Amino acid sequence: MSNDRVKALVEDLERLLLDFMRKHRITHEEYRLATVILVGTVKAGEESLLYDVFLEAEATDIGNDGREGSPEVLKGRSISPTLLCLRRPMCFLSGSTRLVTFCSSTAGLPTRQVNPWQGLGLDLWQADAEGLYSNIHPGIPDWNLRGQIRSDANGTYEVQTVLPPPYEIPKDGPTGRVLSALGRHFFGPAHLHVKLRHPSYGELTSQIYFRDGQYLNSDVASAVRDGLVASLKRNENPEDLSAKGLSLPYYEVRYDFVLAPHHAHDARRVA
Amino acid sequence: MSNDRVKALVEDLERLLLDFMRKHRITHEEYRLATVILVGTVKAGEESLLYDVFLEAEATDIGNDGREGSPEVLKGRSISPTLLCLRRPMCFLSGSTRLVTFCSSTAGLPTRQVNPWQGLGLDLWQADAEGLYSNIHPGIPDWNLRGQIRSDANGTYEVQTVLPPPYEIPKDGPTGRVLSALGRHFFGPAHLHVKLRHPSYGELTSQIYFRDGQYLNSDVASAVRDGLVASLKRNENPEDLSAKGLSLPYYEVRYDFVLAPHHAHDARRVA
Repeated sequence: MSNDRVKALVEDLERLLLDFMRKHRITHEEYRLATVILVGTVKAGEESLLYDVFLEAEATDIGNDGREGSPEVLKGRSISPTLLCLRRPMCFLSGSTRLVTFCSSTAGLPTRQVNPWQGLGLDLWQADAEGLYSNIHPGIPDWNLRGQIRSDANGTYEVQTVLPPPYEIPKDGPTGRVLSALGRHFFGPAHLHVKLRHPSYGELTSQIYFRDGQYLNSDVASAVRDGLVASLKRNENPEDLSAKGLSLPYYEVRYDFVLAPHHAHDARRVA
Repeated sequence: MSNDRVKALVEDLERLLLDFMRKHRITHEEYRLATVILVGTVKAGEESLLYDVFLEAEATDIGNDGREGSPEVLKGRSISPTLLCLRRPMCFLSGSTRLVTFCSSTAGLPTRQVNPWQGLGLDLWQADAEGLYSNIHPGIPDWNLRGQIRSDANGTYEVQTVLPPPYEIPKDGPTGRVLSALGRHFFGPAHLHVKLRHPSYGELTSQIYFRDGQYLNSDVASAVRDGLVASLKRNENPEDLSAKGLSLPYYEVRYDFVLAPHHAHDARRVA
């Protein structure tokens, strides 16, 4: 970020916050309470949780606006996944992985194409059936429900996993108290995390929500976007169950990824 | 603060910050940088310094707006002062302490009066000639330049002390880096801290700046207000020097305090 931009942003934010304080006639007591909450979130180990709940999704939107390819969702901390352990297999996530490419034509100008792409790396991680993450929450086996796969020769992928429940953010700290005061709940809708990796295009971090899922319209972090919601289809067809070696009905989720050059910070055109 | 007010303030602030992010097309990278700075200030031990530099004075203004009596300045942490040690006596601070009272008249309605008040408690603290505070900065004798006095039978006070230099806020942490990016310096003008105490009216925390002092018009915390600036008068009159037992010229600062009932959180009218 250039120094001119820092200056423009901070000076406008300063003006806007001072206007806000004047408009609402914020007293010193109220001001001090606000700083105690803001400082308290960090001291309580919540890091940027309070800001993320209220503001992060907007910054992600702005990055996605007007760009092609799958929307980016920069939520969650990716821990290099190595193994996907399953407790209750009952959900199959599948889809295609395509790349936006620009190929040189004989006429000289590059031609834009969207093609299936094989061997694209996918990191997957999610909460377990109780809403808990391995390597974050205690008592969960290391690397549970974290895994790495690659799309196959057809540019498609499929992974068998469990359906996570809605996710509840920490509610006992300062952020929880702010949300309580607003009369808001602490839940985000159930979701799966996926990170795509391509050696030239870089990484795309995303997450997939389920249509008709609980809290889809009242996400505590206001992060749900149409392009991130996939249909959840229940399948109890005996033939399909048999083909998968299952005795109980399962769910199917399909999500197709498109990786465009802009996703990479050091994007280079693929000739 | 009522829950309705918390809700109104946080919801308006949320809307306003989201508008700000859209207007400036804040990227996720910029958003994350901002949270890293905000979280970093607390981790660096700066507590609310960043917020205080930019916003605190405004909240103090709002509390003072339309109120009578001396303006309140809620900056600085008061440590119960017990002893005022002097290194280089060369400044005399004096003035009157008056109270706004409401006395019952025979007609029934209370009459407002502003009267000199004796025995008003004054806590005084300040930086030394090098700009350092005892009980804050290391290497300074405990309670140096911190003291308690009471106004005399005429409702006046006088204390002999040293002139502090401009004050520099910590500049090596995240707050300092933000200010550097804005091209701002780190200084506030020289000042004295005074806290008035009255058993029924409560406390008034204030600070006194010096007219024509350096940084008076560019205070890093934008906290200087006309009502807080006192004239600094150099006195080299041999008779006055002799009366005070001094051989070198000294400075005189006069500041008159008026304590009004609104200053107390649990203000009770004095009958």
